[in-house]
Amino acid sequence: GSPLANGKLHLHSSVKRKLADEKGYVFDKRLRYNVRQNESNCRFRDIVVRKEEGFTHVLLSSQTTDNNALTPEIMKEVCRALGNAAADDSKLLLLSSVGTVFCSGLEPSYLIGRLSTDRRKESSRIAEAVRDFVLAFIHFKKPIVVAINGPALGLGASILPLCDVVWASERAWFQTPCAALHLTPSGCSSYTFPQILGVALANEMLFCGRKLTAQEACSRGLISQVFWPTTFNQEVMLRVKEMASCSAVVLEESKCLVRSILIPILEEVNEKECQMLKQLWCSTKGLEALFSYLQNKTHEK
Amino acid sequence: GSPLANGKLHLHSSVKRKLADEKGYVFDKRLRYNVRQNESNCRFRDIVVRKEEGFTHVLLSSQTTDNNALTPEIMKEVCRALGNAAADDSKLLLLSSVGTVFCSGLEPSYLIGRLSTDRRKESSRIAEAVRDFVLAFIHFKKPIVVAINGPALGLGASILPLCDVVWASERAWFQTPCAALHLTPSGCSSYTFPQILGVALANEMLFCGRKLTAQEACSRGLISQVFWPTTFNQEVMLRVKEMASCSAVVLEESKCLVRSILIPILEEVNEKECQMLKQLWCSTKGLEALFSYLQNKTHEK
Amino acid sequence: GSPLANGKLHLHSSVKRKLADEKGYVFDKRLRYNVRQNESNCRFRDIVVRKEEGFTHVLLSSQTTDNNALTPEIMKEVCRALGNAAADDSKLLLLSSVGTVFCSGLEPSYLIGRLSTDRRKESSRIAEAVRDFVLAFIHFKKPIVVAINGPALGLGASILPLCDVVWASERAWFQTPCAALHLTPSGCSSYTFPQILGVALANEMLFCGRKLTAQEACSRGLISQVFWPTTFNQEVMLRVKEMASCSAVVLEESKCLVRSILIPILEEVNEKECQMLKQLWCSTKGLEALFSYLQNKTHEK
Repeated sequence: GSPLANGKLHLHSSVKRKLADEKGYVFDKRLRYNVRQNESNCRFRDIVVRKEEGFTHVLLSSQTTDNNALTPEIMKEVCRALGNAAADDSKLLLLSSVGTVFCSGLEPSYLIGRLSTDRRKESSRIAEAVRDFVLAFIHFKKPIVVAINGPALGLGASILPLCDVVWASERAWFQTPCAALHLTPSGCSSYTFPQILGVALANEMLFCGRKLTAQEACSRGLISQVFWPTTFNQEVMLRVKEMASCSAVVLEESKCLVRSILIPILEEVNEKECQMLKQLWCSTKGLEALFSYLQNKTHEK
Repeated sequence: GSPLANGKLHLHSSVKRKLADEKGYVFDKRLRYNVRQNESNCRFRDIVVRKEEGFTHVLLSSQTTDNNALTPEIMKEVCRALGNAAADDSKLLLLSSVGTVFCSGLEPSYLIGRLSTDRRKESSRIAEAVRDFVLAFIHFKKPIVVAINGPALGLGASILPLCDVVWASERAWFQTPCAALHLTPSGCSSYTFPQILGVALANEMLFCGRKLTAQEACSRGLISQVFWPTTFNQEVMLRVKEMASCSAVVLEESKCLVRSILIPILEEVNEKECQMLKQLWCSTKGLEALFSYLQNKTHEK
Repeated sequence: GSPLANGKLHLHSSVKRKLADEKGYVFDKRLRYNVRQNESNCRFRDIVVRKEEGFTHVLLSSQTTDNNALTPEIMKEVCRALGNAAADDSKLLLLSSVGTVFCSGLEPSYLIGRLSTDRRKESSRIAEAVRDFVLAFIHFKKPIVVAINGPALGLGASILPLCDVVWASERAWFQTPCAALHLTPSGCSSYTFPQILGVALANEMLFCGRKLTAQEACSRGLISQVFWPTTFNQEVMLRVKEMASCSAVVLEESKCLVRSILIPILEEVNEKECQMLKQLWCSTKGLEALFSYLQNKTHEK
């Protein structure tokens, strides 16, 4: 299962077509097709799941959104993949992305579309999807390695401290512009970011939308190593395979020792964060702020 | 309300005169006079409070001590200003200083003077003033941005982690020489410094008086960005204004998410720290150590 | 008691002989002999204890293992030395090592030898020795300064966050290759490493055996200063003597403020970690993994 050969298949959406032209695009589309045929019990639309020797590889590869943005449906697919990986014989999970963007967070146009139709019902439904998505990471017992090939934004950045080993390509950068988007922190970042980055930098990210380069994120502890883009996948695979040669019991028990003390705190924080998001989405003001942000973004293009 | 024009007014104390000669001195003294005339309900002697568009600007500008050192009276003025800012329509608070020193911590000569007269009573009174000053920061619900133009010492450094966004000029440096002064940590630094800087560096600061440059403080997470002294105020104002354009609800709720889990711990730590200070000030040994420190300092000059 | 003169005595073991040839070897063997004769009530075999002006100096100097590796017997000697230092009139404790390696962690050949004879009994005995060793650091009330002259591995690295001020020579490096050794974290590193280094780097150390240079360990907060090897001892002594000139009450109460809030957590983490080690040592698989690691190591030579 080498992910390094370039795919040349017919692509279903125009969004995906441009990704294939990218130099950095290293995932073989043919493999996805095979995986889907072979694993009839785990069909996914916006992620790809590959069983490797000793580990499960989950790749964000959204067909329904640009830039691997998240919708409740995509988050549910990730939850399902994590559930499967928890039960199978893999020792750890590798999470990465197809394309040039790791994950751009919640899809704003989806949010607006849904919240405009039925604010009360949809704000609950989306907040619950976020809550369950984050809980799936909090409760996953095997180590999660994340390989970040490009920008990680919003929820795509804030879940990183819930994973165990986080490596990034030099091309990655990190941003959680919640306040500007009229959003409050999510993914437990209100707790994990101050813990890791210090209160001052965490708040500058959450309140002022401060962008961190891969090197900055590394020197401040959000990630633990930065690799050169051209060899990023090889470097990650080499290390993941070595890690997968360790004892499954030792890996799971070590993670348990590191995490178990934090789980009740993270559960509480996640609950509070999602409650607050629901409240904001339920309010007229919140919706207006999202609208005006999206319009500004369109004008910038 | 631009703070960038140089003031040329008559200055009341000789201490302040030398500050005006400094290149880095950017606060307009005329403005202070206007502020005082306009806001009859908040007259202050050692701080200046300016209502800006969307935020309140509190500046340490001590008339009664050198180098913005703190006395119970000055700390009470800050508490009062924070109380006012909590109740008004500002979205956040900007804290900075007039002069070349951000804040040199508790005034040692004040301490000695008072403790010499009535050790028992004064040790209680001063410890309570410290406790209430620190509590005012712990309980302040809107984001606090601190702009540190110069050295921050003792309590002036240890309250920084209780603030939310902390920016510094290249000229700033940080030191908490408690042990050398026969003092124990204050401002919750016994808890926040190890959390942010790691146990080893926190203790080197608290036990050995290790001095951190602005760059070191930034790379270790005490502050989140260092700016060039000549453009420091503009850079800060630019960012504070942008932050003040965010929703008040989002700012306050985001701060609540980040802080609420820590408040009970910080309250307990603050209580313990102030109890210990009171005990030390109450003891003959504590007073002698302060005396000898002050004498050495005078000899150094 | 200057530790800087080179010793030229007859050395008892061949392991130690090579150390004496090292340029970096600065401990005077004659002194050890004197110390032993003078302090009849604290005879040690694998550590050296020296009473200095205001502080106690404990040096790892193992006669029974290579590279200052730890056995239950050596750990008991350290516990005894800490117990003595807690009761005497010293204000702080300095911990360092004789030789070129600070501490290489638990001795694997000892582990295998003992666990092969009586797995059930010995796994309990060794896990209890580790637990008590770690508890002795958790409960020590005076500040502990550690001077790390060379590599610190496994338990030798993981106890560092339980000490207060941690300085290292440029020659030091840090590694906790637990997973590769079929071991789970110890020394409370499952809690302290994520706190200090961030989750990502802590896990890369614990799961992937990531090695940190002295400079990396400093920039990430595990230690607070790196010194040049040739002047390392002088720099440390200078600072320790200055620290020992502070008030004993202030030092102990400051440490109490910094640590007391963490002690119950550390006790719980230590208990869990040692339970898990005992379980692994009790299992056939665990023993086999240790065996194969040792064999690989021998082949590498």
